[in-house]
Amino acid sequence: MNINDILERVRRRELDTASAAELLRTPAYDDLGYAMVDHQRSLRTGESEVIYCAGKTPGQIAGIFQNMISRGAKNILATRADAEAYRSVAEHVPDIQYHASARIITLRRAPQTVREHGILVACAGTSDLPVADEAAVTAEFLGNRVERISDVGVAGLHRLLSKLDGVRRADVIIVAAGMEGALASVVGGLTDKPVIAVPTSVGYGASFGGLAALLAMLNCCASGVGVVNIDNGFGAAFLANSIVRLAEKYAKS
Amino acid sequence: MNINDILERVRRRELDTASAAELLRTPAYDDLGYAMVDHQRSLRTGESEVIYCAGKTPGQIAGIFQNMISRGAKNILATRADAEAYRSVAEHVPDIQYHASARIITLRRAPQTVREHGILVACAGTSDLPVADEAAVTAEFLGNRVERISDVGVAGLHRLLSKLDGVRRADVIIVAAGMEGALASVVGGLTDKPVIAVPTSVGYGASFGGLAALLAMLNCCASGVGVVNIDNGFGAAFLANSIVRLAEKYAKS
Amino acid sequence: MNINDILERVRRRELDTASAAELLRTPAYDDLGYAMVDHQRSLRTGESEVIYCAGKTPGQIAGIFQNMISRGAKNILATRADAEAYRSVAEHVPDIQYHASARIITLRRAPQTVREHGILVACAGTSDLPVADEAAVTAEFLGNRVERISDVGVAGLHRLLSKLDGVRRADVIIVAAGMEGALASVVGGLTDKPVIAVPTSVGYGASFGGLAALLAMLNCCASGVGVVNIDNGFGAAFLANSIVRLAEKYAKS
Amino acid sequence: MNINDILERVRRRELDTASAAELLRTPAYDDLGYAMVDHQRSLRTGESEVIYCAGKTPGQIAGIFQNMISRGAKNILATRADAEAYRSVAEHVPDIQYHASARIITLRRAPQTVREHGILVACAGTSDLPVADEAAVTAEFLGNRVERISDVGVAGLHRLLSKLDGVRRADVIIVAAGMEGALASVVGGLTDKPVIAVPTSVGYGASFGGLAALLAMLNCCASGVGVVNIDNGFGAAFLANSIVRLAEKYAKS
Amino acid sequence: MNINDILERVRRRELDTASAAELLRTPAYDDLGYAMVDHQRSLRTGESEVIYCAGKTPGQIAGIFQNMISRGAKNILATRADAEAYRSVAEHVPDIQYHASARIITLRRAPQTVREHGILVACAGTSDLPVADEAAVTAEFLGNRVERISDVGVAGLHRLLSKLDGVRRADVIIVAAGMEGALASVVGGLTDKPVIAVPTSVGYGASFGGLAALLAMLNCCASGVGVVNIDNGFGAAFLANSIVRLAEKYAKS
Amino acid sequence: MNINDILERVRRRELDTASAAELLRTPAYDDLGYAMVDHQRSLRTGESEVIYCAGKTPGQIAGIFQNMISRGAKNILATRADAEAYRSVAEHVPDIQYHASARIITLRRAPQTVREHGILVACAGTSDLPVADEAAVTAEFLGNRVERISDVGVAGLHRLLSKLDGVRRADVIIVAAGMEGALASVVGGLTDKPVIAVPTSVGYGASFGGLAALLAMLNCCASGVGVVNIDNGFGAAFLANSIVRLAEKYAKS
Amino acid sequence: MNINDILERVRRRELDTASAAELLRTPAYDDLGYAMVDHQRSLRTGESEVIYCAGKTPGQIAGIFQNMISRGAKNILATRADAEAYRSVAEHVPDIQYHASARIITLRRAPQTVREHGILVACAGTSDLPVADEAAVTAEFLGNRVERISDVGVAGLHRLLSKLDGVRRADVIIVAAGMEGALASVVGGLTDKPVIAVPTSVGYGASFGGLAALLAMLNCCASGVGVVNIDNGFGAAFLANSIVRLAEKYAKS
Amino acid sequence: MNINDILERVRRRELDTASAAELLRTPAYDDLGYAMVDHQRSLRTGESEVIYCAGKTPGQIAGIFQNMISRGAKNILATRADAEAYRSVAEHVPDIQYHASARIITLRRAPQTVREHGILVACAGTSDLPVADEAAVTAEFLGNRVERISDVGVAGLHRLLSKLDGVRRADVIIVAAGMEGALASVVGGLTDKPVIAVPTSVGYGASFGGLAALLAMLNCCASGVGVVNIDNGFGAAFLANSIVRLAEKYAKS
Repeated sequence: MNINDILERVRRRELDTASAAELLRTPAYDDLGYAMVDHQRSLRTGESEVIYCAGKTPGQIAGIFQNMISRGAKNILATRADAEAYRSVAEHVPDIQYHASARIITLRRAPQTVREHGILVACAGTSDLPVADEAAVTAEFLGNRVERISDVGVAGLHRLLSKLDGVRRADVIIVAAGMEGALASVVGGLTDKPVIAVPTSVGYGASFGGLAALLAMLNCCASGVGVVNIDNGFGAAFLANSIVRLAEKYAKS
Repeated sequence: MNINDILERVRRRELDTASAAELLRTPAYDDLGYAMVDHQRSLRTGESEVIYCAGKTPGQIAGIFQNMISRGAKNILATRADAEAYRSVAEHVPDIQYHASARIITLRRAPQTVREHGILVACAGTSDLPVADEAAVTAEFLGNRVERISDVGVAGLHRLLSKLDGVRRADVIIVAAGMEGALASVVGGLTDKPVIAVPTSVGYGASFGGLAALLAMLNCCASGVGVVNIDNGFGAAFLANSIVRLAEKYAKS
Repeated sequence: MNINDILERVRRRELDTASAAELLRTPAYDDLGYAMVDHQRSLRTGESEVIYCAGKTPGQIAGIFQNMISRGAKNILATRADAEAYRSVAEHVPDIQYHASARIITLRRAPQTVREHGILVACAGTSDLPVADEAAVTAEFLGNRVERISDVGVAGLHRLLSKLDGVRRADVIIVAAGMEGALASVVGGLTDKPVIAVPTSVGYGASFGGLAALLAMLNCCASGVGVVNIDNGFGAAFLANSIVRLAEKYAKS
Repeated sequence: MNINDILERVRRRELDTASAAELLRTPAYDDLGYAMVDHQRSLRTGESEVIYCAGKTPGQIAGIFQNMISRGAKNILATRADAEAYRSVAEHVPDIQYHASARIITLRRAPQTVREHGILVACAGTSDLPVADEAAVTAEFLGNRVERISDVGVAGLHRLLSKLDGVRRADVIIVAAGMEGALASVVGGLTDKPVIAVPTSVGYGASFGGLAALLAMLNCCASGVGVVNIDNGFGAAFLANSIVRLAEKYAKS
Repeated sequence: MNINDILERVRRRELDTASAAELLRTPAYDDLGYAMVDHQRSLRTGESEVIYCAGKTPGQIAGIFQNMISRGAKNILATRADAEAYRSVAEHVPDIQYHASARIITLRRAPQTVREHGILVACAGTSDLPVADEAAVTAEFLGNRVERISDVGVAGLHRLLSKLDGVRRADVIIVAAGMEGALASVVGGLTDKPVIAVPTSVGYGASFGGLAALLAMLNCCASGVGVVNIDNGFGAAFLANSIVRLAEKYAKS
Repeated sequence: MNINDILERVRRRELDTASAAELLRTPAYDDLGYAMVDHQRSLRTGESEVIYCAGKTPGQIAGIFQNMISRGAKNILATRADAEAYRSVAEHVPDIQYHASARIITLRRAPQTVREHGILVACAGTSDLPVADEAAVTAEFLGNRVERISDVGVAGLHRLLSKLDGVRRADVIIVAAGMEGALASVVGGLTDKPVIAVPTSVGYGASFGGLAALLAMLNCCASGVGVVNIDNGFGAAFLANSIVRLAEKYAKS
Repeated sequence: MNINDILERVRRRELDTASAAELLRTPAYDDLGYAMVDHQRSLRTGESEVIYCAGKTPGQIAGIFQNMISRGAKNILATRADAEAYRSVAEHVPDIQYHASARIITLRRAPQTVREHGILVACAGTSDLPVADEAAVTAEFLGNRVERISDVGVAGLHRLLSKLDGVRRADVIIVAAGMEGALASVVGGLTDKPVIAVPTSVGYGASFGGLAALLAMLNCCASGVGVVNIDNGFGAAFLANSIVRLAEKYAKS
Repeated sequence: MNINDILERVRRRELDTASAAELLRTPAYDDLGYAMVDHQRSLRTGESEVIYCAGKTPGQIAGIFQNMISRGAKNILATRADAEAYRSVAEHVPDIQYHASARIITLRRAPQTVREHGILVACAGTSDLPVADEAAVTAEFLGNRVERISDVGVAGLHRLLSKLDGVRRADVIIVAAGMEGALASVVGGLTDKPVIAVPTSVGYGASFGGLAALLAMLNCCASGVGVVNIDNGFGAAFLANSIVRLAEKYAKS
């Protein structure tokens, strides 16, 4: 429980103040010097642990893995991890798995039931695959059924139209596209499900590192499209997961 | 039904080809010269009709209203409508309603049940209200229960924290914020529900018309946040509605 | 003939040097102080006279019209002309015509045969109409058969697909679109004819005055698409005309 | 045939619905996992196969070549291919050719008649040569007669003027220029043929990777100039080819 | 004399320290509250007084004029002055002159010999005239012989080439051009004299308020071109004047 | 006290939990619908009340004034207030004062001792005065002794150098400058006191609304310079005040 | 003493003019060819010597160290120094210390008393550590007591809130944050002490090298926040130090 | 002579048409395939040959050197040349000289008198030296007397002020500065000679590769400053040389 939760409970009279005071003194994380490892995030956001590896040394990443495990973590996802980071972690935690194209390390020690609801990850071109992979691996790690359709750029509409079944079946659709990012608009016009658009940095010249796709997606003429940061496949999957979990919650109730 | 639906049905053998050919010859929209009014959108996207008024003359807007009504539309929402547009439409359709702050015209002739699931619309400052209003009026028009919290910018965290009940109750949260747009990050860290961030053009100097807030929201350190275009309150509500509808569908099944 | 043409002809021995020297002394334009009116442009580019009115006063525009007519011009096209410019010119040249939506003044005193080859002007939304009109009026002025399809944005693909006959019939296609500009990509993927994309300044927020559409069109994943400046309907039509004229030339030979 | 073609034919009664249903079930492409190879593009766009290599591994590129050949492709053009990609493909397809400066791999097994109509590729400086080469090699691959003039920047106008014969002979002119990109304006003023401008990323400082040339070309004061993406020699040639093919079609008819 | 001059003279033993101390206590300017009017600038920079009017009220501008005159100023140039500023000053200083197109007020009470050396002000289009006028009026005010050539954009090279005599005669050339700003490159290639390029904010769409012309001029492939701020005709003339004055100084010595 | 303060006190055993619970239920602000008026901010930040008027209607501004007064506020500062806002407030609160150049409304009912420590507000040109005024009026409202030096741009170094006494006397220096913003660097090099730089939107062309000055100030080669938003005179004064208050606190202790 | 100091003293009659003239002839720095080493800066700014190493060769850096020491420098701080620079200096000056994460070399030969006043350096994530380290090492070198809190990004507010004691204890707070930079706003809202915000280049995609955080911090809705350049930990510490020194000065008086 | 010169002479009756025709057929340059080497440029611009090496292979650069020499060139300057280019040329032309910091190769076989007039090259910091060196080496190659002052950034004004003699002596001043580029403004305010400002890419963070310095210099509040491209030391020297040559011409006449 974080501070606000404790306060909340005091206010709702679910917690007496002595216990509250006790809780307030117990650190909810470990300070490794280079990182504060938060052992209540899974409780708070309802998911397993996540590490963002960019800008961290292989040694730091391994250290975070070990600290998390020592505090009871079963399932860990580490994004933007290169092969060196993988090898560094694997020395101490041999049962991790490396998804090279997605640049993701996963540890899965606790079993996870797969939801019925499905997330579709569509990408415009072969070059968008790493971002689409980051989204797909993340979504699967979070317990979702993931379907994939690749290389369905809008310059060859018939390819996309031949995959309409997949679009219709999905509960949430993630669209990864670089260059002019038009796939998000076209998919958004074909469905009434939530669409999450991920601009990719694929392209050259006036794509300006994904800016062209980003602006296009934000200006999407189809309504019902939310955009995440350039190349942020993880964020797209995380948002998709929060949507599916909401549906799941009401399905159960 | 649109062309692809017809094709789908033929492929699924739900429709014989003669009927399909007949359908293909019937126009699914009216061409008013200045606009193609689409009479199947409500069917296709499951919602009522929507008009985007910016760049259209009052006369054109009134013309689209009349055409839609003549073809059976009961509920119409028109965004970015100024007072002149409202007066022009009201001459022919007196039972419309004008939401001045949100710049929205609504026509509601068919009753609409309000969903149990709730959308929270939070805004950072008083100046963000018009965008938050556009989101709230749209969400209500689409059948959602809407809660509002206003003026909860991150420089006064305690205001936001005092409204945590509202944050917890919501199924989907829309955050409208200009300036540095930090409210999206803070709210995103307090909830595990889907958050839709709307940067507003509120600010001056280096806010560059909302660019600062837009970039901040895209770089949001909290996961699970999707971003729509600057000032696009409508788009945020439309996306939130598609998420709630998904939950509703599974609740019913 | 301009200086280089004269030189060319001397080199090709088509012109004796005495005549050449004479030609070099004859001014090929009138200097009105505020503008040099070029009376050989029609000869050189093979078209009628054109005036770009933005940044010129109504009086200057009227002066240029009169000078051109006094030197024998029959057909004149003036773009970016507001109503005041029109009235100013009409006082002296009553047989001009004003195309309000396209903001174009035309004078047509010499008859013009209409080519068989056709130019299609497609626009994504109602708000793009003024730019599409500038393109269409220009293309017609230059002697082309023009077909129009409006309001065929990619979020409603079936509208565009229902107009495929028009796309197939055209020899050159001009696509005017604001917001995310995706129509250029989709049309470019449906045809093997030259496509000229005109980004429009339609949109708000992160469209940044047409920048989003411009970048998208430049990054168009469909090959065979050339882009002109934001809102430059005239330039698109001029380029389309030069393409059709090339085809015409070979058809005649 | 793609889905829309099939539909078209049904509507035109050129195809009975049973055959149509059959065609709909036959995949028109191969899904290699990392790419969907489209075996009907040549039919649809009237050209041979094209591969964009940037962002693909040498292995993937070789795989796409082999799949295309196995399905009957005779002529293949692969752009943005480095030497490693070339070697990887050459192991399996020894009769390919590598154009180092243009970074293009070509396979030519079917003979191709060369059109009478000519494309001129002009470039402003020595440093623009790789982009001009990409344009020239592509245009030749597509069956065009290509003429080249190099190093004719506007700071030495007399060089360009000494090449006016070439400019006059061409049916379509491609201009590749970095730095201030002024060559497009000057050439555009000297001809009434279609001009396709390719900004290159040549330059330093405030050229901002080709942005200066791109903006200059879009603001070109000469009419009749279409612009493609920075360094996109392929796209310029593809557009030029579509223009020449149009002329050719009418010449034949 | 300013503080550094005084110090210099002390160091060079040209001034005894008592006199220096005295000078240091005498204010060299008047503090009007809203402006410090510097009565030594003409001494220091060798020119008459200059006022930049943008952002100052008509009353403030009139106040500065009056203060300068009261302290002995004979010749004053005020740039970016609108008609209201002119009227406000003229009430108190009736012998001023207003150059409407150049938006300049001049006061000339002391006679000025005109230099033999000439400055050429060339502009690309009619719309660039106000900026060219600001440069020309300023250069004349500073005592230079000014020649003008207008409307010589690079899309009509023959116009410029027909004016080569003027280009050759000039000692310094100012080029004012908007849109793609290519005139600076072409003129720079035709002369070995110093060229000062002034980008103008003329243009639309992707000219981005003169940015396109500015970048083009900075990337000018012709060497020997210096650039000043967008629309800064005054600055170009001031720089040109400092160059001509240098030549004049050596001619005299 | 805000929520966190309450919690803090509980943790420090300064507050018993019953009182804490009570406090938690008492709203610390009034919700006016369009604004949450925070009646604990003065307590929390140690200053009087502040209203940012941009984007608020005159009626809303008057409403906030009245609410604040009704809850006991004595001193109120309202920035970015135009004359209409002033008149609207003055109808209900006649003892306010309007600072036209600074666009500030002040209410001062409680007396305020003026600190001994001084803030210097320097501005580069006459056009920067409104921003400098916003800073000066704010700093005085917050109880500081303010000195002003105006029109000391770096092109006339001697003016600035003649004011060195003022620079030396100040405890904190605010520098407001547009155009190239170099005054911050020069002042920063002349003092070892904290310097707060405010870029202003003064300038034209490539100043891009203050961007040039902003970037220059951020890249300031003198150390010890902090930058606030473009035209943010209020923010500069607020920061300066927090620095002076810190010094004051230690002087007292 | 620099020139202006000398002049000042003359004006204040603290220095006779003969001594002044002598001082003016004595160089106050050594010209090493590649750098002018200033031996009066410490006197002038009240601190030890500082070297900015970026863009200097290891040999040049060593040369500057040696020259400074030869002229009496005791304490030297060198920022942006890589390991190679460290090794190059250590050959000649073995008693230097290298702070690898902060990329700083320090030489400390004169003892330094540590101030009572404290500077808090807070950073949002592990990846911001190098910038926070540059700030912390610099602040300590300058004689300050430094406290650190790391990894307190706003997506996990409770971490920050659990550290409120540290925030309250500090006299000046430095906040280093990349991505959306929201930590500055939140911290600014929790304190009334001066806050110095350092945007870091941490992030990807639309963070555009720290631009997103920079804009966010400039638009900070909390007042009293000054911003320094992206990644400029040194500048933040230097400004913080000048603030603390001011407080110290008044505490002593 | 170029085409226009020939034409000019024909028009002035200085050349009969037969000779003119002959001249027109003689190529004035050699086409090496990868470059057109222009053997009349020295005639036309009055200087020796110049090669811009960036984007050219060492082999191409050596080839151009050899061609120029074979056609009679005596003095050659090659900019942006790395050590490898130098070695490649030196194999064939051993008497070249390499200026490593300036990245320039020079060949000097014809003696050159040094002008009396002097060019001052001032640079703000040690890191700006390579750009200042490019300017100085170029200016010397072109026959100018060059003086240098280094490391005179505006944060230490006294260093610059101590070098005022050099500033006063110079006829033209080149200022190279990165970061905030304020040196150009300060120098511009201290002199009435032409100032040429070269922004350098020195800096980090919000210097954006020299953009901050570029914008600052364009917005320079001192009049009489012309700006060249970022890092373009060569261009600054070339412009300075054209100014000095003009003075020289009048001194001789």
